[in-house]
Amino acid sequence: MGRWEPNAGQRLQAAGLELFEERGYEQTTVADIAAAAGLTERTFFRYFADKREVLFSGSSELRERMVAAVREAPEGSTPLEAVAAALDATAKVFAERHVHARRRQQVLAANPVLAEREAAKMSLMVGDLSAALRERGVVEPTATLTAEIGVLAFRTGFAQWLEEGGSLAEVFPRVLAQLRAAATA
Amino acid sequence: MGRWEPNAGQRLQAAGLELFEERGYEQTTVADIAAAAGLTERTFFRYFADKREVLFSGSSELRERMVAAVREAPEGSTPLEAVAAALDATAKVFAERHVHARRRQQVLAANPVLAEREAAKMSLMVGDLSAALRERGVVEPTATLTAEIGVLAFRTGFAQWLEEGGSLAEVFPRVLAQLRAAATA
Repeated sequence: MGRWEPNAGQRLQAAGLELFEERGYEQTTVADIAAAAGLTERTFFRYFADKREVLFSGSSELRERMVAAVREAPEGSTPLEAVAAALDATAKVFAERHVHARRRQQVLAANPVLAEREAAKMSLMVGDLSAALRERGVVEPTATLTAEIGVLAFRTGFAQWLEEGGSLAEVFPRVLAQLRAAATA
Repeated sequence: MGRWEPNAGQRLQAAGLELFEERGYEQTTVADIAAAAGLTERTFFRYFADKREVLFSGSSELRERMVAAVREAPEGSTPLEAVAAALDATAKVFAERHVHARRRQQVLAANPVLAEREAAKMSLMVGDLSAALRERGVVEPTATLTAEIGVLAFRTGFAQWLEEGGSLAEVFPRVLAQLRAAATA
């Protein structure tokens, strides 16, 4: 497995983001990222399946937190309340990450292939949340539709927060209320 | 511009879908599709920018119909009613296309790169619908959220229709009602 490298994953993420910003995503190779982090390509591939994953490795952890929050929502919560708890759980992850999240967003916006992967990750989020809701006894189509509404609130709220800053934990309830109003008007 | 070929676009679409099903999407080339349709590669590229577009060329026309329906919705319609009219307008397009839509869906499901493009097309649909709503005087964030709800209803209803058949025009109002219930529970 090669020698142990302290914080290798984080170093590769930081180096990757910086190179994507400076040179452009297409112009950056895995070898460039590894070299900038003072690591080998071999080490890179122990942490990431490909170049894109440098920007997406946090997303499965995020989904796990959301699923855990749905599972732990108080008995008797409505499906939408359980999903609101999942959104609130993500707010903590991003509390200190506004600058990083904006930099990442700019790289995504400049590269359609990355924006498409982001969209695909959102589909995984819908799948995970709806499965967690079904575990709680929520039936279809309510489970999937509530998960979809939750992910829509996540995307919308996250975009607002990227723009405006402030507290993500305050943004999500506001967006859910706006969505409710739009869906019933 | 080369000689005129009757229904060249449709012949290429039909040949492409058939080859994607038989050989697989990755294993099919533009040259294969053109040959199967009895046309040249040169003709192919007059109709489609790339191999993927064979499956997506209808999507911009679909968005245009939706935008037209939003524009033509009666004065005094709520944003959600205008979006419901856009969904209803798409139902007509697919009235005779259930078999084709299912075949296309199976090719998409087997190829992540195609599923990602489908998701990207849905983002374009959100953008077009929200712009059409803003033209009607709907303000943000209502315009975008209502467009998002509309596209969510479109995706969900379309998937149900692929599965169950029947009339898409009856599916959409039912899904919108389910969404309303999920968003307010």
